[in-house]
Parts: sequence; C-alpha cells; structure tokens
Amino acid sequence: MEQIEPITRMVTELSHLPGIGHKTAQRLAYHIASMPLDDVRDLAAALWQGRKAIHFCAVCGNYAVEEICDICASAQRHNGQICVVRDPKDVYAMERMHDYQGLYHVLHGTLSPMQGIGPKDIRIQELMDRLQDGSVSEVILATNPDIEGEATATYLARLIKPLGITVTRIAHGLPIGLDLEYADEVTLSKAMSGRREM
Amino acid sequence: MEQIEPITRMVTELSHLPGIGHKTAQRLAYHIASMPLDDVRDLAAALWQGRKAIHFCAVCGNYAVEEICDICASAQRHNGQICVVRDPKDVYAMERMHDYQGLYHVLHGTLSPMQGIGPKDIRIQELMDRLQDGSVSEVILATNPDIEGEATATYLARLIKPLGITVTRIAHGLPIGLDLEYADEVTLSKAMSGRREM
Repeated sequence: MEQIEPITRMVTELSHLPGIGHKTAQRLAYHIASMPLDDVRDLAAALWQGRKAIHFCAVCGNYAVEEICDICASAQRHNGQICVVRDPKDVYAMERMHDYQGLYHVLHGTLSPMQGIGPKDIRIQELMDRLQDGSVSEVILATNPDIEGEATATYLARLIKPLGITVTRIAHGLPIGLDLEYADEVTLSKAMSGRREM
Repeated sequence: MEQIEPITRMVTELSHLPGIGHKTAQRLAYHIASMPLDDVRDLAAALWQGRKAIHFCAVCGNYAVEEICDICASAQRHNGQICVVRDPKDVYAMERMHDYQGLYHVLHGTLSPMQGIGPKDIRIQELMDRLQDGSVSEVILATNPDIEGEATATYLARLIKPLGITVTRIAHGLPIGLDLEYADEVTLSKAMSGRREM
C-alpha cells in the first residue's frame, strides 16, 4: 500500500525546504499528522499569514511589515552609515550583536558571473540612489567573505569611492568560507571594529 | 532591532517540530519569508488541509482518509494475520518492504511504567476485540526492539496465547536500539522471516 495522499503531499511540500531531505520530510509529516488540529492550524497560519504580511522595505530591501522597515523608520539610527549585506538574514545576524547603529542595504544577491548574476540583477542601483543626497559618509561592505562576496565588495568600492564617501570592508575576523549568518556575535563584533578603508 | 513579528511567529511554530532547533527554525523562517506567495500557500495548505483530512482507521488505528484505512478495506490482504506496531509510521516502514500481506494494529504507544503508560493507555483492548471472532490465526508483534517494545510484546503474548492464536515476535535482525522507522527494507524483511513463536 502507498501512503495516503495527505501525507504524500506534506512530504512533497516539506522536502522543498532547504536542508529538509526526504527522510526528514517523512518524519515531520508523520509527526504533523498526529499533532492536535489546533497546533497544525497555528503552524500553517504562522507560515501563510506570516508570509503574506512580509514584504521588502522600500528603502533598504530588508524584510518589513510596513512599507518602511523598523530600522529605516527609526529616529535612533545614524543615517550617515549604510551597511551593505546580501540577504535579510544577514541584517538579523548584524543586529544580534547590538553594536551597530547605522542603516542597512540588502542587495538580495551577490555578483556571480558563473551564475549570470550581474550588477542589474541585485539592488545596486537602489544603493546608488540612496547615496545621492550626500547624507551618507560611510558605506560598510559586509557581504560574505567568499569569492562572490569579495567580488561584489570590490565592485561596489570602485563605484562608491568616486562620490567622496568612505568605503570600508568588514574585517576578516570570520574564517573564509563561513556565511555571515552562522558567525557568533563576538566574531562579528570583532570583524566590524577591525574594518578597513578600501 | 528585534526581528519582525511574522518571522518570530514562524520561528516559534517551526521550533515545536521534532528535530527542528532554534537555529534551523530561524533558517527556515527566513527562507519561507523569501519564497513566492503561491509556494507558501501550497505548503501551509498541505499541512493544514492534510492534517484535517487525516484520522485514525476505526479498525487498526493507522492513518486514514476514509473511516477505514486502505489496508483494512482491501480484499487483497490476508485477514488471518495481524502485525502489531507502535505508530502509524511503523506501518509505512513495514509496507515499504512489499512483503507482508496481512493486516496491522497500531497501538499508539508502548507500555512504560516509567512514564505511567499502562495497558489502558494504548490500543490493547481494541486489539483483543479484533481477536474475538476467531478469524485471526497469527499475531506478529513488531514493536521496537527496546525495553518498552519488548515489555509490550511480552505483555501481549501472555494475553493472546490463551486464545489459541499463534503469537510471533519479529526477529532481532535489527540492532537493538534502532527504531523500526529507520531500518532498511532488507533488514526488516529478514526480521520478518526470522520471526519465532512466543
């Protein structure tokens, strides 16, 4: 006998998630099938209503509930500094260290000739637009310390320095190859303080 | 800045699932937040509508969409054999070997004095009721080869043998301590064929 259709459908959907293989999806589906109805409703609602409520901040590209994210909307943040990261999850990683008071810019990708991702495919123009009014004095490049991240940082530095804005690169306190999101707070904090002008 | 509420809620719900820690839940939530709306709707619908569609078979206790599961309802299965397992996922594990043609009985637990689980807390009475009409000639005890599984098998053997029904225990082809659901098909198949009368 095959397993019943609702379970098969759960397994299919769950195994689309990153890091969830067929065996894990199977285990999760069987667990969910035994969960109280209310708990499954809460889980499904958290995913679907949550996803519906989230869009990208019109200024920085971070996840936001309103049109502008809490960080861009805050009067407490220094608007003279912009920290450039690849993904929204990297903003979360930076915020965890409770140290940085400037703003962010989320590129939603990094340059990758291998994968055909060029400057127009990520949010570089949006960053350049934000730098036009002269209020920003420093752009901190916090893309990951891998080939694409380094290439993107170099590209952005060449673009931004002619505007007379200080461009810094987050220090290589993190071991090469480790994604920003997996770094602990202390390492990230050291990498920030050791940043150097490009 | 804290992360936005929809993300926090996703993380909370996801980390209730078995084997999903806070870091994994975080990673999944950030991924889901970036997924196309339609894909998240499909995922949430698979979980919620799937869960709503599933109940326990009125006969064997396995997952079912109808009142009676496909296995109990099938004319192809031998109704003289009942294989007793702990969980619905164990039925799936047994069915994967495409070898066994009898019926199942899902206990939904095993005896565990330590956790206060006695004979009335699992589906033992339902099993005894199925054995009353004399159509069953063999009960195969396929609870896991751990302390609770062995204790449950011994308890059931004592209860069923006086009815004149052959009681067998799945062979210990599986290494002690390995849950049924993680066994490969060959091992399971060997364990079935090597079963001995209790």
